Amino acid sequence: MTAIRVNLPGDPIFPAAGPDRSYWVRCGAGLLDAIGPTVRDAGGRRAVVVCDAAVTRSHGRRVADSLRSAGIDVLAVDVPSGEPSKSVAEAARLWNAFADWAVDRGTHVVAIGGGVVGDLSGFVAATFGRGLPLWHVPTTLVAQVDSAIGGKTGINLPGGKNLVGAFWQPLGVFSDIDTLATLPRREFVSGFAEIIKYGVIFDAEFFSWLEANAARLLDREAVALTQAIGRSAALKAAVVERDEREITGERAALNYGHTFAHAFEAAAGYGTLLHGEAVAIGMARAARLALLMGRIDGALVARQDRLIESFGLPASWEAMATHTAGSLVALMSRDKKTLGGRLRFVLPDRLGHVELVDGVSHDAVIKALDG
Amino acid sequence: MTAIRVNLPGDPIFPAAGPDRSYWVRCGAGLLDAIGPTVRDAGGRRAVVVCDAAVTRSHGRRVADSLRSAGIDVLAVDVPSGEPSKSVAEAARLWNAFADWAVDRGTHVVAIGGGVVGDLSGFVAATFGRGLPLWHVPTTLVAQVDSAIGGKTGINLPGGKNLVGAFWQPLGVFSDIDTLATLPRREFVSGFAEIIKYGVIFDAEFFSWLEANAARLLDREAVALTQAIGRSAALKAAVVERDEREITGERAALNYGHTFAHAFEAAAGYGTLLHGEAVAIGMARAARLALLMGRIDGALVARQDRLIESFGLPASWEAMATHTAGSLVALMSRDKKTLGGRLRFVLPDRLGHVELVDGVSHDAVIKALDG
Repeated sequence: MTAIRVNLPGDPIFPAAGPDRSYWVRCGAGLLDAIGPTVRDAGGRRAVVVCDAAVTRSHGRRVADSLRSAGIDVLAVDVPSGEPSKSVAEAARLWNAFADWAVDRGTHVVAIGGGVVGDLSGFVAATFGRGLPLWHVPTTLVAQVDSAIGGKTGINLPGGKNLVGAFWQPLGVFSDIDTLATLPRREFVSGFAEIIKYGVIFDAEFFSWLEANAARLLDREAVALTQAIGRSAALKAAVVERDEREITGERAALNYGHTFAHAFEAAAGYGTLLHGEAVAIGMARAARLALLMGRIDGALVARQDRLIESFGLPASWEAMATHTAGSLVALMSRDKKTLGGRLRFVLPDRLGHVELVDGVSHDAVIKALDG
Repeated sequence: MTAIRVNLPGDPIFPAAGPDRSYWVRCGAGLLDAIGPTVRDAGGRRAVVVCDAAVTRSHGRRVADSLRSAGIDVLAVDVPSGEPSKSVAEAARLWNAFADWAVDRGTHVVAIGGGVVGDLSGFVAATFGRGLPLWHVPTTLVAQVDSAIGGKTGINLPGGKNLVGAFWQPLGVFSDIDTLATLPRREFVSGFAEIIKYGVIFDAEFFSWLEANAARLLDREAVALTQAIGRSAALKAAVVERDEREITGERAALNYGHTFAHAFEAAAGYGTLLHGEAVAIGMARAARLALLMGRIDGALVARQDRLIESFGLPASWEAMATHTAGSLVALMSRDKKTLGGRLRFVLPDRLGHVELVDGVSHDAVIKALDG
């Protein structure tokens, strides 16, 4: 097992959270059965376990058993799998279930599943009773390396994704790699897009390590997976520590490839491309844009393409031919990360380092899409 | 005009809120027309004005005009009057209106009305885009002296009031006493219950001042009103500064009379008794309970009764005869401020000072109700 500390300052307006709000991201095998004692030691006497319905039998029950064995009273609530659960209606269903069980500020919330359950449960925990203690138990690769770390919670509106939410840090994260063994291959593979991203934006050495270990990772070797997830979690934790609430702009580096990705996902129709697949294509396009702007050379573009493809992820999108590059650029202009219609991109200037680049021309973006 | 500073520490996790989160509660006449420049100086370029539909014509338009004159782009949204608007459905309606107007973190929210609009708008401001700048413009006496100060926001669920919410401090509060001139007399009078409460729990001198000035206040004399509202706001601000998030228990003093009041409101059916009326009866009963427990003498009970009645507020509840004291105690046992079924009350031990008393016997409460 490896454990990464997320160092966050104490909150003077919420001293009950302790002298600081730092927490551990635990990563390794066999963690599900060890959650009970940790929650109990943190003062949990009652807990609501919110679980993706697809993993209730496999993982949810084990966590609930672990909590009960530690003397904790448990309410188990299932959430239907899929993005539509990040809705006002589903949040309201959870709020009402919490009310019916007389949840109070001493009740802990344990979220088990991927990003959908984590984001939804986190938002409900942030707002019920004006804030409940929260634990994340991510059971997908993308949740273990990305969404479970950093305290962003949220639900979608018809008008856009993640428009409603709160910053709400968990008391801890349990990333049990055993849960990845049963993950469908396409979903497992898509998680590597965000892992590759950390190498490109922050850590050239990690990028090289991924090149050398792709086969072991795809074979789901425990030691290699623990290293990749631990390193990714540490890189995300470091940027969250520096810019928890997206004030300084440092956290924006995490959006590398994402302005393109959001346009691809919207153009394809949500659910057609997995998020990680869209990010992989997006990173390939962003690298081409950086090349066109003279920020990097062609060798780095090719090297990133090779790593993306070695994980079985796409670097180009065949179906994109049915959309014009112009219509994709129009979608990007509506992305919430744009500022006043001008296009902004996170672009590399060397392996392991990116910058936020403002006012990129539409022509350059169209060329990067076509290239 | 008077202005009370609410001193709150800076939030290290949200430095954009400034070096500290302190703000001014302005109280006086003619403030509605002066809001625009203040919001503009705080960086507002766009603003959503959320207004109780009952005061849109009288107050909402003046505030919107003031904002527009200061060069601020305004979206005006009305909220139906009454407690049912503190709902998930109404929050969702506002969230969607915000999304349709492309509200972002640079858009300010201005809440105009009583506690319902303030609590609802505050919750929506706390959660849209993970937090927007907020201004309160309370137009009822009870909102000016209580709900607009202190950062509590929330909505109701079928299972209970204020079960969902967030702590979210405004950038400022504008308590314009001109808005009280048109307030229906019963609603105006009910606001004095909370004002009297501040005297009993924190400030014997203020209590005496209220005894001497009840007639001027009931005549809505501007100078007297400004003094009473300003003093109340200062007393509330002081306790919020010491215990913003109800951790130390100091903020619990504000619940004086409220455990009784919540039972009366529930027994009568919500909307039958105004909240302030229920609080007045509740304070009278709480004082009797303190007398029965030997904490205060009969003279103080009588003196508090006299002040309550001099404002035209009830100290006893005739309709209570249709309920047994036992059924009211059963309601209190379900109140969220109880702990494990034991009854807790905020009780005075002298004028200007209260304590939180645990484990009060049901018999004593029944006697206090009947007395």
